[in-house]
Amino acid sequence: MLRTLVSRPFHTYSSSTYQPTLGAFTSRACFTTSSSFHARSKMAAPSSSEVNKTAHAFERSALEGLLIKRFFFCPAFEIYGGVKGLFDYGPPGSSLQANIIDTWRKHFIIEEEMLELDTTIMTLSDVLKTSGHVDKFTDWMVKDVKTNEVFRADHLVEGVLEARLKGDKEARGAKVEEKEDDPTKKKKKKVKSVAIQLEDSVVAEYESILAQIDNFNGKELGELIRAQKIVSPETGNEVSEPVEFNLMFDTQIGPTGQIKGYLRPETAQGHFVNFNRLLEFNNGRVPFASAQIGKSFRNEISPRSGLLRVREFTMAEIEHFVDPLDKAHDRFESVKHIKLNLLPKDVQTEGRTDLSQLTIGEAVASGMVDNETLGYFIARIFLFLIKIGINPERLRFRQHMANEMAHYAADCWDAEIHTSYGWIECVGCADRSAYDLSVHSAKTQNKMVVRQPLKEVRIVEKMVVGLDKKVFGPRFKKDAKIVEDAIMAFDEEKLKEVAAELAEKQSTTVRASNGQDYEVPSSIFTITPTTIREQVREFVPNVIEPSFGIGRILYSLLEHSYWAREDDVNRGVLSLPPTIAPIKVLIVPISGNTEFKPLIREVSQTLRGLGIASRVDDSGASIGKRYARNDELGTPFGVTLDFASLKNGTMTLRERDTTLQVIGKIDEVIKLVADLCSGLEWSEGSKRLPAYTGEQEI
Amino acid sequence: MLRTLVSRPFHTYSSSTYQPTLGAFTSRACFTTSSSFHARSKMAAPSSSEVNKTAHAFERSALEGLLIKRFFFCPAFEIYGGVKGLFDYGPPGSSLQANIIDTWRKHFIIEEEMLELDTTIMTLSDVLKTSGHVDKFTDWMVKDVKTNEVFRADHLVEGVLEARLKGDKEARGAKVEEKEDDPTKKKKKKVKSVAIQLEDSVVAEYESILAQIDNFNGKELGELIRAQKIVSPETGNEVSEPVEFNLMFDTQIGPTGQIKGYLRPETAQGHFVNFNRLLEFNNGRVPFASAQIGKSFRNEISPRSGLLRVREFTMAEIEHFVDPLDKAHDRFESVKHIKLNLLPKDVQTEGRTDLSQLTIGEAVASGMVDNETLGYFIARIFLFLIKIGINPERLRFRQHMANEMAHYAADCWDAEIHTSYGWIECVGCADRSAYDLSVHSAKTQNKMVVRQPLKEVRIVEKMVVGLDKKVFGPRFKKDAKIVEDAIMAFDEEKLKEVAAELAEKQSTTVRASNGQDYEVPSSIFTITPTTIREQVREFVPNVIEPSFGIGRILYSLLEHSYWAREDDVNRGVLSLPPTIAPIKVLIVPISGNTEFKPLIREVSQTLRGLGIASRVDDSGASIGKRYARNDELGTPFGVTLDFASLKNGTMTLRERDTTLQVIGKIDEVIKLVADLCSGLEWSEGSKRLPAYTGEQEI
Repeated sequence: MLRTLVSRPFHTYSSSTYQPTLGAFTSRACFTTSSSFHARSKMAAPSSSEVNKTAHAFERSALEGLLIKRFFFCPAFEIYGGVKGLFDYGPPGSSLQANIIDTWRKHFIIEEEMLELDTTIMTLSDVLKTSGHVDKFTDWMVKDVKTNEVFRADHLVEGVLEARLKGDKEARGAKVEEKEDDPTKKKKKKVKSVAIQLEDSVVAEYESILAQIDNFNGKELGELIRAQKIVSPETGNEVSEPVEFNLMFDTQIGPTGQIKGYLRPETAQGHFVNFNRLLEFNNGRVPFASAQIGKSFRNEISPRSGLLRVREFTMAEIEHFVDPLDKAHDRFESVKHIKLNLLPKDVQTEGRTDLSQLTIGEAVASGMVDNETLGYFIARIFLFLIKIGINPERLRFRQHMANEMAHYAADCWDAEIHTSYGWIECVGCADRSAYDLSVHSAKTQNKMVVRQPLKEVRIVEKMVVGLDKKVFGPRFKKDAKIVEDAIMAFDEEKLKEVAAELAEKQSTTVRASNGQDYEVPSSIFTITPTTIREQVREFVPNVIEPSFGIGRILYSLLEHSYWAREDDVNRGVLSLPPTIAPIKVLIVPISGNTEFKPLIREVSQTLRGLGIASRVDDSGASIGKRYARNDELGTPFGVTLDFASLKNGTMTLRERDTTLQVIGKIDEVIKLVADLCSGLEWSEGSKRLPAYTGEQEI
Repeated sequence: MLRTLVSRPFHTYSSSTYQPTLGAFTSRACFTTSSSFHARSKMAAPSSSEVNKTAHAFERSALEGLLIKRFFFCPAFEIYGGVKGLFDYGPPGSSLQANIIDTWRKHFIIEEEMLELDTTIMTLSDVLKTSGHVDKFTDWMVKDVKTNEVFRADHLVEGVLEARLKGDKEARGAKVEEKEDDPTKKKKKKVKSVAIQLEDSVVAEYESILAQIDNFNGKELGELIRAQKIVSPETGNEVSEPVEFNLMFDTQIGPTGQIKGYLRPETAQGHFVNFNRLLEFNNGRVPFASAQIGKSFRNEISPRSGLLRVREFTMAEIEHFVDPLDKAHDRFESVKHIKLNLLPKDVQTEGRTDLSQLTIGEAVASGMVDNETLGYFIARIFLFLIKIGINPERLRFRQHMANEMAHYAADCWDAEIHTSYGWIECVGCADRSAYDLSVHSAKTQNKMVVRQPLKEVRIVEKMVVGLDKKVFGPRFKKDAKIVEDAIMAFDEEKLKEVAAELAEKQSTTVRASNGQDYEVPSSIFTITPTTIREQVREFVPNVIEPSFGIGRILYSLLEHSYWAREDDVNRGVLSLPPTIAPIKVLIVPISGNTEFKPLIREVSQTLRGLGIASRVDDSGASIGKRYARNDELGTPFGVTLDFASLKNGTMTLRERDTTLQVIGKIDEVIKLVADLCSGLEWSEGSKRLPAYTGEQEI
């Protein structure tokens, strides 16, 4: 069992198997079982030292210190004490995020001609009621009855039982390993263990409870808490019965208090409710995809772990609408050779985590990946992540196991990126079948279908409804529309039933969307079996949904990019690719002398004209210090202006990772920088100009 | 009096003159006075027909029909009945918005090397308490006592009194003109007029009330409602006493219900609370600017008028931090020649609306515009709006009058764009002095100052505080920090007072930020007059704030771009500039023949490679229909692939506005398109290739 590594499947929140679309990568709570922790420790994940360029072991605290110091991000309202799970991005963080999003937009929206949307964050409660979020997007919560401290019920049980098991091991003299935390889980309060040996039967019972902790509902969790005498860890007070806590932020729209709204927990519903307009925009044809980049919100009970589990986050979501009978993809050829690290469900079911290295072509051909379109997106997600600088050795695609998926889902794969927190789910890619469109369509009585001309006319027998509108309208007045809608929503079977009833009783009862029943007589309502020549096929398209958590990708990228110079563990470097780096070029005048000003302006204007973001550092710090500061910002290139620049029109160019420098005429250097920013490798580009050795790098 | 045209100044919400930063362009309610309506009708605004290319008069309904049909936008959750003031942008609207934002980012952030931020939408209530929004960002509201229908109190009074005045005029036989609505105002319910003549004294009283309607507070509005026997217009029921309604959406952060949050009504506070980190990022120096693009929210009582008054909107805000003693701008030279339509405050005070055409250099030199930095931004705002396609003849800068501005503001100008709704405030540009940083600094005890080395050392006499930390800490325990902070916040005057008190009583009382008083004896707290050599000047920078309402700009641009073909009023065209147009090139194969597929793919791939967004329309519609559809989407260029393309490798190129076509080799045409998208004019570019006359344009 490897389920720690994944987010907890939504249907475990309730006994239902109903599962809203959730933008797989976030929250939804992950579950932690003792057995899965053991499984994780067996995992073959590349160590940081293998991956990073540094000889130093990766230290998260060093990276985090750098990120806060250089204002990649900071706690929001820091001067007011901050609020957990809310972060502001400063200039380098914002630029990095903007560059990742820009690359995403080109890679997906432009390249694939997707239809971009910008739908509201503020969402009418009815929409999220239909999607299932109002009822099911919840966690079970308990409170310390005296202090009102809040715990997630399942995490409290886990925390206490695990602490008791640890105490048992200590008492038995076993060495207890500290676990690697997975921040994508809502973490439980740390509970201190006390070395007390337990009966063997109790150990077995605890282990059994922990193994199935995510299967308990609120009532069962409450019973467990009482049976196992679980109390608030720090105070020893009792805790309340578990209550459901919805993870959406709610508010009122308008002044009357009558319109309830939620901040969307994902962007997906905005695509679905607009399906008919999107389809029309696409001339009525599938396949097509809509895409949206924007903020979503989840009111986590206890957010932690920096940017990985937050209450406000940027998502990028694609909804690809496709014919359920034809999930081939016409560009699949172009990606089928791409080799991926895959972790299919059957391997996980056997408790293993070894990766299959297959091409996506092989994975689809063998049936491991359900269809070409899903496979195509998996490959495109891979290409995107590699392009922005994610280490392919620390990237895997993990398939959801049967018990993680909703009953209607055909297949689902998560792109997981390895970080110091373990494997982090960063992109979800699910085939959600026709579910989402079907539920909105049923709820609103708006057909959401594709109509496709048939190649051959089909002769079918159908029940055809006749309504005498002249009588119907006046009879039902303002309700006429909903009564008609209710009738029009009858399927063939229902129509046959009603036809029989009309024949028998000359009347039938129709329940409309307002919940009321209406008596409709056969004098104004007929149902006639009719032979119809069908020339059009009508179907609800399926949805394939790649859903990206931009903040998680950004943080993972920072970890993959970070290392420290061999000669000094405190000299951090972020080796971000030039396309993604917040600033591409640092302009460093050798001194604050005003003589340099015109030249600085000229160089920075020229770079700007080429679309290359640069920054001048004319502070009093030494050149070495200024470059070091800039290594921490991930700026790939630095140019130095000195008195030779004024005299000879030359400029030196320094590359961040190697610290090597070359020298050339200012326009030559700028041309080289432009090419380096467009993909030319330094190892190649640096050959164009002579090495600069005239000054010692500090 | 010309005050209709402006948003209502914030301080009119209360008797205080305290004015939070508000991103001038939105809400804040505008007030409507009968006198100002008259003023508006005198305004010299260019008529649509002068401005648009069309011979047809501008019809808003035709444009709106087009925008909904082509899915520029639509009501959010339309299939659920929608909610007022919430709109989704479809593909062309999203792309248009993305292109406007992209241009904004280049024009401001990149060009001016601003520090970009991405701060949270979810905002801790304390922050908005300090900024004044929690207490003052409100409208007065009344309810129909029986139906609970809600009205904005001032609008209800206005609506009823204006209807009575209209009835009076009708009774007197005068012709009553329909007013031009200004959608930036929160509109009142339309109240039907009845032709009843009023006493002359009553007419005078009503006019006097209407002229000062924005000066009444809630109590006074309540008295007016009773005195004038104003009732709910449709039901005739009485209305309740006015109550304040805060325009921010509120929610709870976390599960405890103890942390109150609001959705930000502007992005500005996110800049201010991060000032110290921004300053450090900028090496401790001013001037510098931060910039942020993002969603903000205002829970309007009654949103109307499409995209102009909405509950969720995209803003782009700049906070430029500058030395209060030196508001010169080092790039002012580069803009001083720019001529603008200016409407200064003294002209408005005289009840006039005629525009001064001055260069910004002249306006700053004459003191009309307060300082160079403010003038620089006004000019840059102008250049930005022109660049994206706003008609300069329908753009003016209106200065806030003294009674519109907060007491601390130095100057404020709004960029107003003329539309069919009148002049719409789209960008605010205010010099907010040191206000914002000062209030956050005072509230949080975090100094927010710039430290600048003085050229000459200054000898000053200062009161220096001494605290005996060894005793101080243990004495006040956990409160030691806030007691110390309170002492350290004393200014020179207070220190002199306290010194006298300590000398007299050997003790003083200090009130800390928790509201409690602490007794501090002179044994651990000394204040000594000391001669100090000051080498550093310390100051709170001033803030100049350009604040853009992207949705309003986008809608105004659509109005300025829209016209209908002379031969057919139903053939709408959006003449968006190529850089801003959602899609640059339509690719039209002459038929759906599969032979064209490889060529279509080649052309679209080549365009994509050049960064040019294109769209294929291979639907069955005629070429003419497809082009017409695309004119409505504002696509500037169309290329047609026909059998000659397959045979000779040629392609025709059609320009949207002129419908003229040229023909050339495919690569020549693509090169021409690329140049046209980079700024080459069609009148020039079209000379490169021979005109195409082989086929009749429909």
